[in-house]
Amino acid sequence: MSLARAITLCESSKISDRKSANELLYKLLPHTGRSLRIGITGSPGVGKSTFIESFGKYLTSLGKKIAVLAIDPSSEKTKGSILGDKTRMEELAKDPNAFIRPTASSQALGGVANATREAILLCEAAGFDIVLVETVGVGQSETAVRNMVDFFLLLQLAGAGDELQGIKKGIMEMADGIVITKADGDNAKRSKQAQAAYQHALHLFQASESGWQPKVLTTSAIEKKGIEEIWKMIEGYHLFANKNNFLSKNRGQQNLQWFRESLDRQIREKIFQSKRLAAKIRTYEKKVMDEKVVPSKAAEEVVRILREF
Amino acid sequence: MSLARAITLCESSKISDRKSANELLYKLLPHTGRSLRIGITGSPGVGKSTFIESFGKYLTSLGKKIAVLAIDPSSEKTKGSILGDKTRMEELAKDPNAFIRPTASSQALGGVANATREAILLCEAAGFDIVLVETVGVGQSETAVRNMVDFFLLLQLAGAGDELQGIKKGIMEMADGIVITKADGDNAKRSKQAQAAYQHALHLFQASESGWQPKVLTTSAIEKKGIEEIWKMIEGYHLFANKNNFLSKNRGQQNLQWFRESLDRQIREKIFQSKRLAAKIRTYEKKVMDEKVVPSKAAEEVVRILREF
Repeated sequence: MSLARAITLCESSKISDRKSANELLYKLLPHTGRSLRIGITGSPGVGKSTFIESFGKYLTSLGKKIAVLAIDPSSEKTKGSILGDKTRMEELAKDPNAFIRPTASSQALGGVANATREAILLCEAAGFDIVLVETVGVGQSETAVRNMVDFFLLLQLAGAGDELQGIKKGIMEMADGIVITKADGDNAKRSKQAQAAYQHALHLFQASESGWQPKVLTTSAIEKKGIEEIWKMIEGYHLFANKNNFLSKNRGQQNLQWFRESLDRQIREKIFQSKRLAAKIRTYEKKVMDEKVVPSKAAEEVVRILREF
Repeated sequence: MSLARAITLCESSKISDRKSANELLYKLLPHTGRSLRIGITGSPGVGKSTFIESFGKYLTSLGKKIAVLAIDPSSEKTKGSILGDKTRMEELAKDPNAFIRPTASSQALGGVANATREAILLCEAAGFDIVLVETVGVGQSETAVRNMVDFFLLLQLAGAGDELQGIKKGIMEMADGIVITKADGDNAKRSKQAQAAYQHALHLFQASESGWQPKVLTTSAIEKKGIEEIWKMIEGYHLFANKNNFLSKNRGQQNLQWFRESLDRQIREKIFQSKRLAAKIRTYEKKVMDEKVVPSKAAEEVVRILREF
């Protein structure tokens, strides 16, 4: 079965597909885990597809096989541009050592994240050395991606003048590295200033759990600058986190979280398959929002009508 | 029933107590919701109890009745100092218009958070105008407190020289206001620098959902400075968030989240009451951490043996 078809199987919510997907994953599991998983995020307009194209081409020139996956929960109101981006990564798409897979799904984030986690395993079993997971950064998708990769990269633009554009709260804290894009021409000086500002802001934070001190770099697609340094940084992290055992510890924790999230999500799905329970929950949601009932009591009333496990 | 006893009732996990607590909350619900709920966090050593004592005394001098609750999940490894703090708020403890309640609980954070949310309602029904919810900031307790208050205040110390001490990632993003404590003597200049640095760092973030721009202030307990300004800031926020309707919208959302969290937690409790299921889940947790089984598959296997709802 082709990799593309296998991923489609994992995205399906049909019961028979789910069964085949599980069988496939079970067989492939011993061949997974050997890639370096890199998450990439950044607002629309930051030059994400241009960056991934340059970065990807650089990696294949080193003899690496790379896969690009995308998380784009279309259930979110803010419309991402990942699908459009893909058609713009033309060169990388033609590279025999690269595989690009946009996720177009009407599923909620939980479902998309689950399918992407499974897709990472499939790419690894197919022999890819590096898996890039891209997100446009709407809603909680960055947190979801952060929780499935080894290294999380944030792309940012230098703002106009001294001003840095607002970044979504909580994203900076998750980054193992920040890259200021379009650091060329008129923008070069501003990018240097932005680099210093972000580096300073990062110092306000405690060291991350891995012990790694996040770095801020700049890149220019036009001047073809900075890509090698970014790869060196990520390789440096990989060595560092391998040595202090954070990498494998982190993956174990990520798996545990994946399991718990799956369990909660699947139990919730099973509950909502019961029309009686789903209706009851909806009624209570309305009531608690209107402060007509104490939320803890409302939850008890729902749980009470569940049968014994 | 005294307020203290009512809170104890809500903290209990005994089924008969739970029943009485629910009845009590049901009766009191129409009398709740009228306080201003303020969350306060800061690392040990920041002067949290000194601040709360000064701030509390100032509020009672304005004729307000204030209640101080604390979230201190003792299940966390990092030991907090809230219990110790309480005995140090001597003056406030003697004030007839103040009520101080440390939470000493062996429950997990979810349970403690739930009890504290109920305690807020009880304090409101007892006529308190302002409820301060304090957390020492271990683990996820700040997020829990953030999700039950109207205004979230972060206390920080100015670091030595130009250096600011590390702050826990993600806390700054949650703050509606930051207060630099011990801004006196040798520390006064550093505090001003820290104030500017934090204000700058806050500008890196997008505006918060409320539309409020977080402020950074300084205070000195020794020189008795800054308390009035802090209250003015919080009052300013209260007016602002009332006017644009964020306050009531936010409380509705908080209630919805409280309900969903309660539901997930209570379902989990019910599952773990089944020895058969609990053992199964433990086995799978071990397996997924060791990468012996795909987490989504493991979750399916647990859900499959649940009976129909």
